[in-house]
Amino acid sequence: MALAPGSTIGILGGGQLGRMLAMAAARLGFQTHIYCEQNTAPAFDVATRQTVAGFGDVAAIEKFAQDIDVATFEFENIPASAIDVIARHTNIYPSKYSLEVTQDRLYEKRSLSSMEVGTADYLPVDSLDDLHKGIDTIGCPAILKTRRFGYDGKGQIRIESDTRLEKALGAIGKAPAILEKLVAFSCEISLIAVRNLTGQVAFYDPVENTHAEQILKTSVVPANIPNRMATQAQAIVEKIVEKMDYVGVIAVEFFHLGQGSDARLLVNEIAPRVHNSGHWSIDACITDQFENHIRAIAGWPLGSANRHSNVVMTNLIGHDADNWRHHAGLGDTTLHLYGKSEVKPGRKMGHITKLLPKNANL
Amino acid sequence: MALAPGSTIGILGGGQLGRMLAMAAARLGFQTHIYCEQNTAPAFDVATRQTVAGFGDVAAIEKFAQDIDVATFEFENIPASAIDVIARHTNIYPSKYSLEVTQDRLYEKRSLSSMEVGTADYLPVDSLDDLHKGIDTIGCPAILKTRRFGYDGKGQIRIESDTRLEKALGAIGKAPAILEKLVAFSCEISLIAVRNLTGQVAFYDPVENTHAEQILKTSVVPANIPNRMATQAQAIVEKIVEKMDYVGVIAVEFFHLGQGSDARLLVNEIAPRVHNSGHWSIDACITDQFENHIRAIAGWPLGSANRHSNVVMTNLIGHDADNWRHHAGLGDTTLHLYGKSEVKPGRKMGHITKLLPKNANL
Repeated sequence: MALAPGSTIGILGGGQLGRMLAMAAARLGFQTHIYCEQNTAPAFDVATRQTVAGFGDVAAIEKFAQDIDVATFEFENIPASAIDVIARHTNIYPSKYSLEVTQDRLYEKRSLSSMEVGTADYLPVDSLDDLHKGIDTIGCPAILKTRRFGYDGKGQIRIESDTRLEKALGAIGKAPAILEKLVAFSCEISLIAVRNLTGQVAFYDPVENTHAEQILKTSVVPANIPNRMATQAQAIVEKIVEKMDYVGVIAVEFFHLGQGSDARLLVNEIAPRVHNSGHWSIDACITDQFENHIRAIAGWPLGSANRHSNVVMTNLIGHDADNWRHHAGLGDTTLHLYGKSEVKPGRKMGHITKLLPKNANL
Repeated sequence: MALAPGSTIGILGGGQLGRMLAMAAARLGFQTHIYCEQNTAPAFDVATRQTVAGFGDVAAIEKFAQDIDVATFEFENIPASAIDVIARHTNIYPSKYSLEVTQDRLYEKRSLSSMEVGTADYLPVDSLDDLHKGIDTIGCPAILKTRRFGYDGKGQIRIESDTRLEKALGAIGKAPAILEKLVAFSCEISLIAVRNLTGQVAFYDPVENTHAEQILKTSVVPANIPNRMATQAQAIVEKIVEKMDYVGVIAVEFFHLGQGSDARLLVNEIAPRVHNSGHWSIDACITDQFENHIRAIAGWPLGSANRHSNVVMTNLIGHDADNWRHHAGLGDTTLHLYGKSEVKPGRKMGHITKLLPKNANL
C-alpha cells in the first residue's frame, strides 16, 4: 500500500508550502508534479514536473491526475469540482470531506461543536437581519468573517458597539458569513499533528504565535503554557483527526484563555495542510511537517516529530526580505527564502529560525 | 559582491551531491541550473533548469555559463578545458587551481608536502621500473593508485611482497600512478570545512568513517579521537584552505595512527567539494555542508556549522535501498533517497542518519 520511491506526488498549488513539500518529497526519493494557476510559482523550481492551468480546467486536471500516484494540496481553497476530477483517477489526501469541513468556517465550527470541542460563541450570518440578531445574542466586540476564502485576516471585520452593521456586511462583500465572539485570550497557540493512512498519529510540540496586522509574525517553541494545557491541546487534536479519519498534516489554532487553574483552550481554526506555524520543524525536528505530510499520504510510517532545539521562527513579510544580507549573517539562525521575484506588502517572502539549546530561555 | 536571491547557481554534475546542493540553493532563494552528461540525473528533479551535454561540448558549456551567475561542481573529475570555457563567462569555485591540485594524487601529495602536512610515504610511478624502485624504497604492503579519476577504491591495487608488479601495473591500466605506503591506522576520520569568498572559515566536527569494499559505509560524530587530535585536524585543514585560497566546502580525509601521546594524523586525500562523510550535517547541524557551500561561493556569510545532536550516518549501497520500508520506520532516524531508478552494485542509493542527544553514547 505504501508508495515506492520513484512514485510521483501531485501537489495542487505552487506557493512556498508546495515548494517545501516538493523538497521533502524529493528527500524521500519521490518525484513531484506541481499544478498551479500562476506560471512563476515558487514550487516549480524544485519540482520534477509542472502544470500551469486553472482549477476549472478539467482536461488539465485529468492529465495531471493521470500522471501522479497520489494527490495533495498546499492550500484549502481548492474547488470541490477539481477534487472530484482527481478522485476519479487517484487518491487525494486529506480527504474531500476534510477539505469541505475546513473550507467553510460555519461547517468547521459546527463540526467542532458536534465533537464537543470548545470554540468561541458563533452564529451564522446570511443577512443584515441575522447580523443584528447575532450581535444581540453574542454581544460586542465580535468578528464578522466570511465563511469561505479567508486567510491572513482577509474577509473579516471587527464589530464594536458603534459599528454600522450594514457597512460591516458590505465590507466583507455581503458573502455568507459567521459572527464570532471576540475572545480575550492570553496567548494564541497552534498544534501541528499528522496522521497517516494506517492511523498512526504524531504531534509536534505546541507553538506560541504572535501576529502583526493579522499575519503570523513569530512562532516560539516551547509555548509558554502549562504542561497540562499542552496535553489538553494534543487530546483535542487527536479527537479531531480521529473523528474526521484525517490523513496528512493538520494545523489547529487555539486561543489560550485565563491563567492557572482557570486556563482553558478554545479552537480558533483548523487548516487541513502544512502550516506556517510549523516551519520551525524543518530546523528543530528530526522529521519536519513537510516530510511527515508526504509520509502520511504515501502510506509510509511517520517520522519522528521529536524536537532537538528551542526555536523562534520569524516570518519575513514584504520588504523584510530585502534585508537578506543581515538575516544571512545572524548567528545560529537559518534563513529560508521562497524564490518569489516580486515583493508585495503582506506577502510571505521567507522566514528565519533562531535555534537555541533545549534548556535555553526564549 | 554577494549574489542576490533569485540569482542562478550553476552546478556541473547531476548526481546526489548536485541534488543536495540544488535543494540547499533553493532554500536560500536561488535558482539552479544543472549541467550533466546523463539525461536521468538525480539532481534534475530539484533544479530550476537542466542541460544534458558532455563536458567536451563547448557550445553547450558556453550557453550554460551565460545562463548562470556563479558555477561550481559536485565532483572533481571535470576536464580543465570545461572549466576554462566557464571561466571566460563567470566565476567558478572552488578555483581551477584547487581542482587541479586535487584531481591528481601526485600533485595533491606534493602540495601537502610543500605545506609540511604529513601524508603516507609516496613516490610517482610512470613505468614498471619506477614501480620496482618504489617498492624497494617504500616497502610492502603498499598501494598503487592512478594519479587521476579514482574514487571508491577504483583505480587502485594493493601490493604485497608476492604481487607480480607488472600485473599490478596492468590492473590499473598502466596509467600514470603513485605508490603509497600502506598505513596501519587506528581509524579513518574526515573533516569537512568551508571557506567563503571573504576568507571566513567554518569547521564541522571530525567524523569517524568506516568503509566496506572501499566504499564509505558509516560516518559517526563525534569521532572517537582525543580532543587535541580534533584540534590538530582543524589546524591542518585551516592551513590547507588558507594556502590554497580555497573557496567552498572541502573534505580532508585523515588516517589516525597510534594511541595516547603517540597519536598522530596523516592526510589521506582531499576532495574539493561537498562529501559523503558530511551528509550527517543535513540533520545534525544548523547549516549543512550543502548550504554552506552555496553560501561560500555566493559571497554570503557562512552559516553555523554547530552540531546539535550525535549521529550515525549509514550509506544505503546498491540493494540496501530496496529495504526502504524498514529504513523509513526506524526511530529517530532520517531517510534520504537520491531518486536513482536503477540499482547497481556499489551504487550509492541513499543514506540514513540516526540522531541521538549530544550526551548519548554511540
